[in-house]
Amino acid sequence: MNSEVVALDDELTVEGFQRLVDEYVSERGWRKYHKPKDVAISIAIESSELLELFQWKPDPPETGKLDKGLKARIGEELADIVIYCACMANALDIDMSEVLLDKIKKNRRKYPAEKVAKAKDWDEVRSIRSKPSEKNGDD
Amino acid sequence: MNSEVVALDDELTVEGFQRLVDEYVSERGWRKYHKPKDVAISIAIESSELLELFQWKPDPPETGKLDKGLKARIGEELADIVIYCACMANALDIDMSEVLLDKIKKNRRKYPAEKVAKAKDWDEVRSIRSKPSEKNGDD
Amino acid sequence: MNSEVVALDDELTVEGFQRLVDEYVSERGWRKYHKPKDVAISIAIESSELLELFQWKPDPPETGKLDKGLKARIGEELADIVIYCACMANALDIDMSEVLLDKIKKNRRKYPAEKVAKAKDWDEVRSIRSKPSEKNGDD
Amino acid sequence: MNSEVVALDDELTVEGFQRLVDEYVSERGWRKYHKPKDVAISIAIESSELLELFQWKPDPPETGKLDKGLKARIGEELADIVIYCACMANALDIDMSEVLLDKIKKNRRKYPAEKVAKAKDWDEVRSIRSKPSEKNGDD
Repeated sequence: MNSEVVALDDELTVEGFQRLVDEYVSERGWRKYHKPKDVAISIAIESSELLELFQWKPDPPETGKLDKGLKARIGEELADIVIYCACMANALDIDMSEVLLDKIKKNRRKYPAEKVAKAKDWDEVRSIRSKPSEKNGDD
Repeated sequence: MNSEVVALDDELTVEGFQRLVDEYVSERGWRKYHKPKDVAISIAIESSELLELFQWKPDPPETGKLDKGLKARIGEELADIVIYCACMANALDIDMSEVLLDKIKKNRRKYPAEKVAKAKDWDEVRSIRSKPSEKNGDD
Repeated sequence: MNSEVVALDDELTVEGFQRLVDEYVSERGWRKYHKPKDVAISIAIESSELLELFQWKPDPPETGKLDKGLKARIGEELADIVIYCACMANALDIDMSEVLLDKIKKNRRKYPAEKVAKAKDWDEVRSIRSKPSEKNGDD
Repeated sequence: MNSEVVALDDELTVEGFQRLVDEYVSERGWRKYHKPKDVAISIAIESSELLELFQWKPDPPETGKLDKGLKARIGEELADIVIYCACMANALDIDMSEVLLDKIKKNRRKYPAEKVAKAKDWDEVRSIRSKPSEKNGDD
């Protein structure tokens, strides 16, 4: 297994990552805990831990000046979130690679680049999204 | 670009996904909105939208019986979360593939499979995690 | 101040509570930190800490059997959330008592008791909420 | 009932508010839905809806200039959160007034006003909180 992890190091595929998470979980006998509702709760909790890193703080003015320790912690929290997302996908037989690509395609259609790039602010972006036919666009 | 998307379809790598999100965002001129604090807020909001799909509902008793429409919506919300995680990684020059692999390795050490698999419940798992030297004080 | 706190003990009003939070915050020189966006982040983080108390656990089968320590921790997390809500109200000159009563009145109209009480499940409750005139009323 | 609501209008007590929420919920037959785990999920979802009002936006530079419509929406979201907190308290026989006062007292001790008011930033506030005897690492 460890050799496999190393092997994947250069070019981890989304599918390989999803399988790696499955192995990690299964080896520990944790599949039984991974009911979708609880995994959704866990994703929300991890997202909140990421958010906590920005609480009471101004936005870092320039990314280049980001404190190295903070960057490492953000990376870890991001990983926690994405790993739990893989747990959810595994629990429900969802192909992460497929839903990611589908969503990006859908978003590309929803927000046509040429129109959106001209928008002055985010409110204008939103107005582009909602087509005239839909009555007051939900999200 | 679209041809590239199709080409990636079979074996999307984490790095390729991260680049794809970057293109999607850059083409729309959205990099300027992606301040880390706001992206962290967005991840939390999307996580809450995923959670909403389970609100007031018992856990689906068996995954196989999961309603197809619900499964599709869960997939979309998962994608939204992971896409925003990629936005954060892009905004801060974080290599997602690297932080994902690092975190799985770290978790493997933190929760040794052979010990953890014998735990009767999650509380016992937690007690394994905290080594005798640390005086409780987990998060 | 402490005498006031004691005096309020028997019949704390919402307005008195809001003032008490204001005093607590002002005495510490914390008003300057309480920008609405950061307070909203803090409310989300505290809500997540409450949620964490239920992570990986089945619903307590009967409230009467709830572990006393757990009940105390839930009470504390609830208090943290409501205290931050008062901070937000104070930061924006919102009268909590007023918005609470307004919202309950609004909800009473939105969900007429006699109709809603007959609903078989939550999905039926939702369908009552959306009046025939609104086209598929999401929230 | 409505007459009572009106009567309470001038000086809503926390206890009266908690009772009002109980009546609202009980009349609709909703107590059965209010399992603590689901109520905690609901509080998190409402908190996220509040957060959404600040997504992608700079902090309002001055409270006085806050858009009136936005202020009303913030008030409504705050109310939703606090109402669900009352639902949780009702579901678990928690006296909100008591836990609120207890928490404020506890926080007053944890952050002594005279010391905290001199702190230059939030990091210094945190260092005051953790007493020398505890080896860092609470929250």
